[in-house]
Amino acid sequence: MSAVGSRCHHGGRHHRNGQKATDMAGTPVTVIGMGMMGRALASAFMNAGHPTTIWNRTPGRAQALVEAGASEAPTVDAAVAAAPLVIVCVRDYGAVRDLLTPAETALSGRVLVNLTSGASDEARAMATWAAERGAEYLDGAIMMTPPGIGAPETVILYGGPPAPYETYEQTLRALGGGTTLISTDVGLPSLYDVALLGIMWSTFNGFMHAAALMDTEKIAATDFLPMATDWLKGVASFLTAYAQQIDEGSFAAEDATLETQIPPVRHLIHESRIRGIDATMAEYTGKLLAEAVDRGHALDSYARIIDHFRA
Amino acid sequence: MSAVGSRCHHGGRHHRNGQKATDMAGTPVTVIGMGMMGRALASAFMNAGHPTTIWNRTPGRAQALVEAGASEAPTVDAAVAAAPLVIVCVRDYGAVRDLLTPAETALSGRVLVNLTSGASDEARAMATWAAERGAEYLDGAIMMTPPGIGAPETVILYGGPPAPYETYEQTLRALGGGTTLISTDVGLPSLYDVALLGIMWSTFNGFMHAAALMDTEKIAATDFLPMATDWLKGVASFLTAYAQQIDEGSFAAEDATLETQIPPVRHLIHESRIRGIDATMAEYTGKLLAEAVDRGHALDSYARIIDHFRA
Repeated sequence: MSAVGSRCHHGGRHHRNGQKATDMAGTPVTVIGMGMMGRALASAFMNAGHPTTIWNRTPGRAQALVEAGASEAPTVDAAVAAAPLVIVCVRDYGAVRDLLTPAETALSGRVLVNLTSGASDEARAMATWAAERGAEYLDGAIMMTPPGIGAPETVILYGGPPAPYETYEQTLRALGGGTTLISTDVGLPSLYDVALLGIMWSTFNGFMHAAALMDTEKIAATDFLPMATDWLKGVASFLTAYAQQIDEGSFAAEDATLETQIPPVRHLIHESRIRGIDATMAEYTGKLLAEAVDRGHALDSYARIIDHFRA
Repeated sequence: MSAVGSRCHHGGRHHRNGQKATDMAGTPVTVIGMGMMGRALASAFMNAGHPTTIWNRTPGRAQALVEAGASEAPTVDAAVAAAPLVIVCVRDYGAVRDLLTPAETALSGRVLVNLTSGASDEARAMATWAAERGAEYLDGAIMMTPPGIGAPETVILYGGPPAPYETYEQTLRALGGGTTLISTDVGLPSLYDVALLGIMWSTFNGFMHAAALMDTEKIAATDFLPMATDWLKGVASFLTAYAQQIDEGSFAAEDATLETQIPPVRHLIHESRIRGIDATMAEYTGKLLAEAVDRGHALDSYARIIDHFRA
């Protein structure tokens, strides 16, 4: 697997179907799915000068884009036929298959880029489905909300064969400066996506819990915020040491051992309960700590908790 | 309550027991409790030039400090009598009370600074206990592991009356540059402590979960790390908007609504299960989202989850 943050580089460009090897600003694109995200994608392509065809199951959802110059195709078949690069971003992978089935023949020889959110096994099955219809397939995960589409810092992770990625890399970069091919495995963008979102939700939930504790003492969330965000920087810096320990399989605590973290977890549970606040997350942490200590890892660092999650 | 990150300022210095109002480098200090943290505290005081008396229930735990010039008191009573400023850092608040009971008389007229980790109600009870014995009381929370004691970036949060804090602020600053009186309420450092630790554990658990997902595809934790830490910066920046929404009580989602986050949570649960990884945290997030949507908040931002935690 490619190193995270680096871009995969491959020799030479890919020629196929007579399409120009040079990925020009004028490359026509088709965007299927006019939800909030699909509209943002189409808009970014148009801003970058790409002739853009759009299609949505329910027509008329993107009148502003049509007024700005997008072509709304009458059928999905016509939409797919309109460009060598077809982007699809809809509700789920089942919807991708349903929508594209009437356009199977037109898909042959095109590059299908699926930015729909899903799971790795669904992405792999979709790649097989596309291959059976003669399309090249890239799967992507958009690590940003619609208003950030097109921004230089917006990260979009792709997986799939390097050739079609290289052919359309510049075009795809119109959607986000952090466009990266992370793997030849089409399943990996979905995996990165949910793994990163999981970190986000965990952190958000921790903050909500903390803000509710503060609220019981009439401390405003915005007053607590600077301390919380400074603290998060420190937390992130601990992850560097933990990642190394995980890879090396050695978990010597240089500072806070697992056993010393058990009393403060109990305090958090107690503090939450006396204030009527859900302590589920703290109880879960307590369980992870107790389990690791029971296994003889009392003096290890928090990185040892990886054992719990490893299959 | 004071704004986080700002220091409380109060007019005039406090004179008491004939002790100099000027907080000099030579102020004698006593440190009770020679665990890893207690030894780090005593060492930082000595490095800053303070005559330091130490005491531990089991003697001889800090031979290196004695060799470096610390006085090991023969009894806890003698330890308390040796300095106007008495720091205690032991296992828990019960131990603080047990240890100090033989020294109750000596405590009168001194400033007792309790850096033991505990809960807010315990801190408030300890302040009452100290007041009954004629001692001024500050409660503190050390937001750092022992190796960081004495560093300029080390944060130690204090709660209690401003006068004794001001008297010894410079002395206490030897333990960490981020020494701050956050409130006159002695209970608040403990509350901040567990609230911040809760954010830390949530984030750590999210990272461990993510690293385990990556591990199933043979992606090293150190390869995943740069993306995860970049991502955390973005997550932290979202908290700014959420804190404001929490304080204002208006939760309009400018980008990702609660309902759009339900499918990706399902993908995370699915992705975890097919790889044999504990999905408890994702299931919890799913529950929080479903609950908020059921209450009619489908189009709100994630900040709406505060409702779940509020008492």
